[in-house]
Amino acid sequence: MNNITKPTLLLDKQKCLRNIEFMAAKAKRHGLIFRPHFKTHQSAEVGSWFREYGISAITVSSVSMARYFAGNGWKDITIAFPVNILEIEEINKLNERVNLNLLVESVNVVEFLSNNLLDSLNVFVKIDTGYNRSGISFTDTKTIDNVIKKINQSPKLNLCGLFTHAGHTYKAKSGEELSNIHRNSINHLVSLKKRFQDVSDKIIISMGDTPGCTMEDYFEGVDEIRPGNFTFYDVMQYEHGICGADKIAVCLACPVVSVHRGRKEAVVYGGGIHLSKDRLLNKSGQPYFGLVVQFFDKRWGQPLKDCYVKSLSQEHGIIRLSEQVLKDIKLGDLLGLLPVHSCLTANLMKEYLTLDSEIITMMR
Amino acid sequence: MNNITKPTLLLDKQKCLRNIEFMAAKAKRHGLIFRPHFKTHQSAEVGSWFREYGISAITVSSVSMARYFAGNGWKDITIAFPVNILEIEEINKLNERVNLNLLVESVNVVEFLSNNLLDSLNVFVKIDTGYNRSGISFTDTKTIDNVIKKINQSPKLNLCGLFTHAGHTYKAKSGEELSNIHRNSINHLVSLKKRFQDVSDKIIISMGDTPGCTMEDYFEGVDEIRPGNFTFYDVMQYEHGICGADKIAVCLACPVVSVHRGRKEAVVYGGGIHLSKDRLLNKSGQPYFGLVVQFFDKRWGQPLKDCYVKSLSQEHGIIRLSEQVLKDIKLGDLLGLLPVHSCLTANLMKEYLTLDSEIITMMR
Repeated sequence: MNNITKPTLLLDKQKCLRNIEFMAAKAKRHGLIFRPHFKTHQSAEVGSWFREYGISAITVSSVSMARYFAGNGWKDITIAFPVNILEIEEINKLNERVNLNLLVESVNVVEFLSNNLLDSLNVFVKIDTGYNRSGISFTDTKTIDNVIKKINQSPKLNLCGLFTHAGHTYKAKSGEELSNIHRNSINHLVSLKKRFQDVSDKIIISMGDTPGCTMEDYFEGVDEIRPGNFTFYDVMQYEHGICGADKIAVCLACPVVSVHRGRKEAVVYGGGIHLSKDRLLNKSGQPYFGLVVQFFDKRWGQPLKDCYVKSLSQEHGIIRLSEQVLKDIKLGDLLGLLPVHSCLTANLMKEYLTLDSEIITMMR
Repeated sequence: MNNITKPTLLLDKQKCLRNIEFMAAKAKRHGLIFRPHFKTHQSAEVGSWFREYGISAITVSSVSMARYFAGNGWKDITIAFPVNILEIEEINKLNERVNLNLLVESVNVVEFLSNNLLDSLNVFVKIDTGYNRSGISFTDTKTIDNVIKKINQSPKLNLCGLFTHAGHTYKAKSGEELSNIHRNSINHLVSLKKRFQDVSDKIIISMGDTPGCTMEDYFEGVDEIRPGNFTFYDVMQYEHGICGADKIAVCLACPVVSVHRGRKEAVVYGGGIHLSKDRLLNKSGQPYFGLVVQFFDKRWGQPLKDCYVKSLSQEHGIIRLSEQVLKDIKLGDLLGLLPVHSCLTANLMKEYLTLDSEIITMMR
C-alpha cells in the first residue's frame, strides 16, 4: 500500500475466496447449479478463482462481457439481459464458440431469433416475479404460453427454462420481507413450470440474487442460482443486514488532500468517477456514498463509527469524520472507502490491487 | 447512426462549437482570460477545437489529466484540485514540461511544496466562498494571511492569484439566488485581493462555473474564468434554466430491448455504467436519470414530453414513455438519452461518435 498515490481499488482476495466458497457450498448443499454472475468483477483472473470451486457455467450481463469471458475459456454462458437484436451478428459469432443461453420475453424476439440465428441455441423465458424491470409478468400466462409455443415451433431454439431476477429483494426492509419476496418468486416459477410440464420435461428454474441466496435456505423446485454481488458484497448489502462488514472484499484507497477540522471533514482524491454515485440514505434521510475504514499494514479495519462519504464530485470525495479520526488525520494519509455498490465501483476502476500488491485487470 | 448496436455517446460537434464560441465571446467581451475546464470532455480532439477560439491555457482536475493534455501540446495547465502530495514525483515531472499552476489551501501544503519541488511553479490560493467543498473560507483571513506569507517566503512558489469554484451555483433555486452567489463570490475575492495589494501586485482572481459564466454579466474585478460543463451542457443545466435543451451537445444512443406497454415503459441497453447514476428530482420528488429524445437522420430532437429515464441498473435503463411515443416504439429502435451530468457520462463512455460518424477518443 506504500506505493499508492491515486484512488486505487483494493481487493482482499482471502475475503473474496471465502465469499465464493460460502456460496458454492450453499449451492452444493441444496443441490443447485451455481452459475455465478460475473458482472460484479468483470475480471478473467477473479473468474478463474471460481474454477477451483467447480464452477464451469457463468452469467454475464452483455454480449461484450460474454465475448470477454469466452475469450478466457468459459464455454457455458448465460447473457442475463433481454436479447438486443441489433447485436445479432455478434451473438451468432459467439454461438459458434460457446454454449450460449439467451433470455427471451416476447414473441417478437423469438421470431427474430428464429429468423436470424445461424445455429440453434438455448433460451430461457424471462419471468418478472415483481421486480418490474424486465421479463413477462408471472401473471401474464397468455403471453408466456405464446412465447413458449413459438419457441417450441422454432428449430433454432431449445427451451431450457424459466428465469427470474427478483431484484426487489434489494429493497426489502426486513428479513421477513426479503424472505417473502424470495419464496413468492420461487413459488410463482414453480407454478408456471407445472403449467408447462406437458410441453417440455427439460424446463429448469433459474433465479437467485445475492440477498436471497445469502440469507435464505428455501430453494424447493429451484435448479440454478446466479448471484453475483456476493463476490465482493458492499455497503448496500451490509446496511440491509445481508453481510457483515468483514465480508466486503473491495475498498477504494484514497489520498487525503485537505482537512477541514472546523466542519469535521476531509477531502480525498476519489470521487464519482471512482466510487460511482450510488447512494444510500442514513437515519436522517440524508444520502451517503460509502463508509470509511483505516488501513493497518496489509488489511483494512471495520467501518469507522460516525464516518461516511458525505458527497462526491467528479474527483473529490467529501468525507465526514468523527473527532477521534479527525484528530490524527493528515495530508497524504490514505483513507479506505467501502463502496455502496461494488459492481459499479469495479466497473469504473477497471483494475484491482490485491493486498499482496498483485494488479488484477478487468474487461475494458 | 445505422451502425450503432450498443450504447454509444453521440456528440453534436456543431452544438459543441457553438457552446465554445458563446463562452469564448463572452470572456472576450468582458476582457477575461478564458481557461476552460477540460474535465468535461477529457479529449485531445475536443480540446483542439478550443484552439480555434484562441485558447492556450486550460484547467484540469487531476495530475493524470494534466499529463494527458500536456502530451497533446497544452503548455499552460491549472490543476483545479487540492495538491495531492503523494503525486509529487509526477508533479515535478510535469513541471519540467509545462507551465503548471497548482492550488494550495494550507500552510502544510505550501511547506511540503517548498521542500519537495525541484523547480518553481505558480500557485493559487484556493478560497471557499460558500460551496464548502475545498479551499480556505473567505472569512478565515488569518489562515489566508499565513498561507500567503509562506508562499512569499518560498523561492519555489510564485503567488499568482486567488481561486474559487462557486459550485453552489449548481444548487441555486432561482436566477436571483444564482446571481447573488455569483456576485458575492466575486465580491469576497475582490475584498481579499485588496487586503494583499501590498504583498503582491500580480494577484489575479480566477473563478467561474458554468451556471455563473453562462447567466451572469457581472465580472468586476475578475481576471479569469474556468467553466467546463458548458462545452456539452446537460439536463441538470437545462432543468435549472441555464441552457436550452438545444444546447446539450451529447446524447447516449441506446437500443430498445424490451417494451412494456402495460406500464408505459421500455427497457434500453444503457444503464448506470453508461449514463452514470447522477440524478435530478421531478416535480413529485421522484428521482430521474435523464431525458429522452428521438433521432432524425443525423440529429436528435427536443426532449420528449412526459418521457424520462426512471431508473438505471448496471446495464438496464428503464424508460418511462408517453402513450404517443410508446405507440410506435419497437425492439431494435434507438432512443437517445440526454444525461443529467454530461461530465460523468463522458467519463464512463470513454469515446464519442460525432453525427458525421467520426470516432473521437478520450483519455483512458
